[in-house]
Amino acid sequence: MTEPTTLADLPLREDLRDEHPYGAPQLDVPVVLNVNENPYPVAPEIVADIADAVARAAVGLNRYPDREFLDLRADLAAFLRTESGAELTPEQVWAANGSNEVMLHVLQAFGGPGRTALSFAPTYSMYPEYARDTLTTWVAGRREDDFTVDVDHAREQIRRYRPSVVLLTSPNNPTGTALPLATVEAVLEAAQDAVVVVDEAYGEFRRSGTPSALDLLPRYGNLAVSRTMSKAFSLAGARVGYLAASTAFVDALRIVRLPYHLSAVTQATARAALKHSATLLSTVDELRARRDETVAWLRGNGFDVAESDANFVLFGRFDDRHAVWQGLLDRGVLIRETGPAGWLRVTIGTADEMQKFRTALQEVVGQQ
Amino acid sequence: MTEPTTLADLPLREDLRDEHPYGAPQLDVPVVLNVNENPYPVAPEIVADIADAVARAAVGLNRYPDREFLDLRADLAAFLRTESGAELTPEQVWAANGSNEVMLHVLQAFGGPGRTALSFAPTYSMYPEYARDTLTTWVAGRREDDFTVDVDHAREQIRRYRPSVVLLTSPNNPTGTALPLATVEAVLEAAQDAVVVVDEAYGEFRRSGTPSALDLLPRYGNLAVSRTMSKAFSLAGARVGYLAASTAFVDALRIVRLPYHLSAVTQATARAALKHSATLLSTVDELRARRDETVAWLRGNGFDVAESDANFVLFGRFDDRHAVWQGLLDRGVLIRETGPAGWLRVTIGTADEMQKFRTALQEVVGQQ
Repeated sequence: MTEPTTLADLPLREDLRDEHPYGAPQLDVPVVLNVNENPYPVAPEIVADIADAVARAAVGLNRYPDREFLDLRADLAAFLRTESGAELTPEQVWAANGSNEVMLHVLQAFGGPGRTALSFAPTYSMYPEYARDTLTTWVAGRREDDFTVDVDHAREQIRRYRPSVVLLTSPNNPTGTALPLATVEAVLEAAQDAVVVVDEAYGEFRRSGTPSALDLLPRYGNLAVSRTMSKAFSLAGARVGYLAASTAFVDALRIVRLPYHLSAVTQATARAALKHSATLLSTVDELRARRDETVAWLRGNGFDVAESDANFVLFGRFDDRHAVWQGLLDRGVLIRETGPAGWLRVTIGTADEMQKFRTALQEVVGQQ
Repeated sequence: MTEPTTLADLPLREDLRDEHPYGAPQLDVPVVLNVNENPYPVAPEIVADIADAVARAAVGLNRYPDREFLDLRADLAAFLRTESGAELTPEQVWAANGSNEVMLHVLQAFGGPGRTALSFAPTYSMYPEYARDTLTTWVAGRREDDFTVDVDHAREQIRRYRPSVVLLTSPNNPTGTALPLATVEAVLEAAQDAVVVVDEAYGEFRRSGTPSALDLLPRYGNLAVSRTMSKAFSLAGARVGYLAASTAFVDALRIVRLPYHLSAVTQATARAALKHSATLLSTVDELRARRDETVAWLRGNGFDVAESDANFVLFGRFDDRHAVWQGLLDRGVLIRETGPAGWLRVTIGTADEMQKFRTALQEVVGQQ
């Protein structure tokens, strides 16, 4: 019997030696408010349509899927037209297994050794992983105390680091902060040698009157706006992220994508769901209203709360945020210990879930 | 109106400037024998089970999928036990959206700048793409005239290039050549500082008595054997590739995988299909018999034919293989123009499809 092989015995890339698999705890607790999922399951009639669509696709599963998936891209373009008035051809839309694969494609195409990706922290904690996976240097500029991005600071960072990729997140995760279009435009003007990705994973939850960066697409061929079906569409389990950009931008992603990356089953699922986008997105207004209530309640109880255009709220501040997180978990409420020191993030759930969160938080804070 | 953005306007990685999206033509012709798909559609009772499984999963699609998918990994381990007698824990199995994502994970973990991946050409044309995507240096040793790998040459290449990853393909694509276990073992002994991946995408089609490299797993912690559900399982459209290795090897892949890379829909589809593995694989014997007939027929008609343990046959040789390929396509038969100069590759289809292939080939060759 030989000794079992350990990771130390294998030629793992040196910079991965101290890394761990990324991901929030997947715990089986009554109230799960930690990964910004939509609390509402897919409605039975939509489940039935998805199953029908998959059954039709399954007959032909012996064949590889449509590698260019232009039908799905057309459906996504049609959705963006409805949602934001964007006029896009199917060739201007790209999709992959979750936004994170979309972002990987972006960094594989436009990043790499000797190149820099710039973002503004605190922001989404996966970005440095995409950079690591693609050997891209990762640089984080700063967000202000209210988590907005200062335009002069952004310009200065772009001048200094000459990034090939700039990632702007709006609404930002984990803070919830939406960026004014003027900020996005100032970055686009300052970073004409880069591609600029505005990550709008939570875009559908933005407050009414807040524009989408999709409005800027006709004027900037180096701009991409990424979206996902994971949040507003209640489809986190289906893993469908997408982006809209110029055709040239999308063509660059086509070079680095693995062939047939999007399965026939995923394409069928997404297209069936998109037929019901109005129904699926009908939860958005309710979640937005509950978010605003949650913000008001937290403020009313003396917490600091970041402005939120997303389906989550960053609140604090706590001397020992881990103790608060643990106290909530002990009461069956799982939220996320993330963001700047002292803050915690809670996803907007159902009315009942938010009541349990409030009760648990009062108990935990009352004990401290 | 501004000029449309072109790829030249964007900061694409310099080494991608002349690259094109990878993939064989997806043409709508009567006889498709170009991408080694299984010609038999998934049977109606299995389609129904897949649809049921997806419907059950769809109810919970608002939640992220099980990130570790240990149930699917257990089902895949059970299948390998049945197919090859391999004794594996679920933690020794890994899966992703197609074998090509599995290979990407391997090269992300063990390749990278300053590192080398070694294979033996002619072999699968995607390997250099995985290397390019992960900034790994790609080196191809040689296969002999009969497309086997010479052990002394392999040892010499390993000494010379000191690869961190060695890719052995058995049965090899596009030649169909299976490697004796003695060759795999000699490579494992010579490459103890590397990981060795035996790509058995076509493993289920090997002639009886040909062992799988799975037999070597208990003795080599740096060995991985990759498989796919695309070929023998008739599930190319579902995009499920997997590998078996030591737990430590799989743990390295867990570091570089994107979180939630395998959707709940994909997991449900694969698990439903694995329940029917005996039925799905019942086409394998028939396809093997037809492959052997095809080899005999081609040889009987004066063609050179490579030994094949796969569901395709490499045959030749032609002074102008493109003209032969085009002549077949003009007659509604799409095969693949790939492999060494002068050779063509044909996938084993149904009896009727192979008859059409033979008739078309005789016409084309008779005209030359």
